[in-house]
Amino acid sequence: MNILVINCGSSSLKYQLIDMNEERVLAKGLVERIGIEGSKIKHKTTGKDEVVVQEPMSNHKKALELVLNALIDENHGAIKSMDEIGAVGHRVVHGGEKFAHSVVLDEEVMDALNECIELAPLHNPPNIMGIEACRELMPSTPMVGVFDTAFHQTIPSKNYIYALPYEYYEKYGVRRYGFHGTSHKYVSLMTAEMLDKNTDDLKIVTCHLGNGSSICAVDGGESVDTSMGFTPLEGLAMGTRTGDMDPAIVPFIMEKENLSIEEMNNVLNKKSGVLGISGISSDFRDIEDACKEGNERAQLSLDVFTNRVKKYIGAYTALMGGIDALVFTAGIGENSIEIRETVCEGLEYLGVELDKEKNKVRGKEAIVNKDGGKVKILVIPTNEELMIARDTLELVSK
Amino acid sequence: MNILVINCGSSSLKYQLIDMNEERVLAKGLVERIGIEGSKIKHKTTGKDEVVVQEPMSNHKKALELVLNALIDENHGAIKSMDEIGAVGHRVVHGGEKFAHSVVLDEEVMDALNECIELAPLHNPPNIMGIEACRELMPSTPMVGVFDTAFHQTIPSKNYIYALPYEYYEKYGVRRYGFHGTSHKYVSLMTAEMLDKNTDDLKIVTCHLGNGSSICAVDGGESVDTSMGFTPLEGLAMGTRTGDMDPAIVPFIMEKENLSIEEMNNVLNKKSGVLGISGISSDFRDIEDACKEGNERAQLSLDVFTNRVKKYIGAYTALMGGIDALVFTAGIGENSIEIRETVCEGLEYLGVELDKEKNKVRGKEAIVNKDGGKVKILVIPTNEELMIARDTLELVSK
Repeated sequence: MNILVINCGSSSLKYQLIDMNEERVLAKGLVERIGIEGSKIKHKTTGKDEVVVQEPMSNHKKALELVLNALIDENHGAIKSMDEIGAVGHRVVHGGEKFAHSVVLDEEVMDALNECIELAPLHNPPNIMGIEACRELMPSTPMVGVFDTAFHQTIPSKNYIYALPYEYYEKYGVRRYGFHGTSHKYVSLMTAEMLDKNTDDLKIVTCHLGNGSSICAVDGGESVDTSMGFTPLEGLAMGTRTGDMDPAIVPFIMEKENLSIEEMNNVLNKKSGVLGISGISSDFRDIEDACKEGNERAQLSLDVFTNRVKKYIGAYTALMGGIDALVFTAGIGENSIEIRETVCEGLEYLGVELDKEKNKVRGKEAIVNKDGGKVKILVIPTNEELMIARDTLELVSK
Repeated sequence: MNILVINCGSSSLKYQLIDMNEERVLAKGLVERIGIEGSKIKHKTTGKDEVVVQEPMSNHKKALELVLNALIDENHGAIKSMDEIGAVGHRVVHGGEKFAHSVVLDEEVMDALNECIELAPLHNPPNIMGIEACRELMPSTPMVGVFDTAFHQTIPSKNYIYALPYEYYEKYGVRRYGFHGTSHKYVSLMTAEMLDKNTDDLKIVTCHLGNGSSICAVDGGESVDTSMGFTPLEGLAMGTRTGDMDPAIVPFIMEKENLSIEEMNNVLNKKSGVLGISGISSDFRDIEDACKEGNERAQLSLDVFTNRVKKYIGAYTALMGGIDALVFTAGIGENSIEIRETVCEGLEYLGVELDKEKNKVRGKEAIVNKDGGKVKILVIPTNEELMIARDTLELVSK
């Protein structure tokens, strides 16, 4: 069966068409500037040249229509007709406490999804728009929602409850949800496969390090804690997000700078992180370049980042009572040899011993610990699309 | 030399008179309800009965006058005249970046202290009132300020900078300062003494667990990181304080509950922590009692607390690249056998092995790890007053 995987942002749409018999990508692409002047699709069918379709797209439905046309196009398409799409898998950011697993999208589920909007006002609405557009264009094709939060629904209450008045949890659902769940799940499954072990027997710390970053403690195949929280702001310092900080700073800065709630959210989410510290860029490649040129604040931002990764590894190891494997994934985790090296430095007391030669790898699967090292260290390119497609296949095959 | 140690709160004043030749407490006491109806002093001279002086005290000067009278009182006093007080040591909560060490209090220092008020608007003003009252009443007695933040001034920038726009640090001094420094310093020095080691050779995690709680990573005698931050709100869940949480929750709750900045600060500092989760009490003894009766939310609040202690121990061990000693101090740390046991559970991978029999100790110095345990586990009653007196003696003897 071929499965179409859709990931909708507010003005973007990423897609992959995957042949699940061989788990092979048939085509993929990215739509940008939906609803904005200059809309375009970059589409690539495996084995063919990339094409760019430039055409006005006033909404997600129009965008998706053009994506489907590109997929069945005689010249640059991958399939002959839409009938060859067996199911669609949609990424949904926030499933709240309702969705601990992926679900077939029916009316009841759509209602529940709409109820989750409050928890993810920026992310869920475009996800829902994408689903609705798809249901209109492909009314008879089964669809599945795969949630960024679902994998973390196994986190026990002692790790998800904040030390706030309990009524905020009851009234507003204020608790740790965690994100990047599809990625943490994928790499933890891959870890077991690469080590030829059962997930039940492994305590893994998975480091999803990208422009948004999170770390997850995976014990026996289940997420038991993760660094992102009620929103994707908590945890590591990120490209533009603060991550952890003294919560008292929020009202302090609001008062000093006379900021509204919206302006404060903007500072915390868009102007902070390594961009805020360095004053240079939110892109870690720029930061690493500036470090090489001796820029002190770039170095400081990188040190803050790597130090916090190190602390989370230590914290989650303490929580699980040990660690068998440490995994790096996503843009930085897969590609930055230097950051992986810095993070592992000083963790020898845990049995984390990086082999600097083996670590010279970018963007491909590798086991990079020293031979005989107690803790296995793995580099695994994440593949959220494949994970979404697998969940979709499983649910529509039932 | 006898040294008077003073710790002023907004409506309270704690004091101890210590004979530094033998480091012996001559007298101590507590003034309550200064400036409020029903002011009183509870005073106790070592070897004599406690007395209670009830008399109106409109301000800290009046309170201090009565304290000095109590100290030289013929019947319940400890000394014959004020001339027997060689120096006064004052606890000051916040020394900002200006004070990395204790200082003799002169005009210049007083000016600098006033500049730190903005950083600790609740704590520093009463500290300063106490100092000023003392200087008026004992104009020729040398005085020393000892800062809760000073011990943490060795924390490197990568651990004190938040991932916020850097200008907030430059303009407002927004960074991690840390508190309880006098306590963390005292117990780390005591650890070296009890283990017959040099502090230079020790990596210690000190857990100051009381109504306010913080954890400190002490490497080679220096604080390298601590859980409290810009204010004493960050870090562990406390009696009524949130500790760590997703900073995005602050604007979310302000909006939902329509709270002002002041009201939000009040929720974060006074209505949260184990009180907020349990709905029962901010006092850990009440919480432990409720747990024994099977109260689930009390148990949840305790689990959140102990779990976070565990995570910080793991994080700081990662930061230092290992751990030689784990220290428990302050109200809970010194007295709660159960909490120490829960915290140590699962840390065997680090070489933390608690001897449950030896651990049956409350409020006195003890080494409680199993014989031959890799990591030494210590219970050490903190003594901030003695630490303040030692610093005071050292500075006035120069």
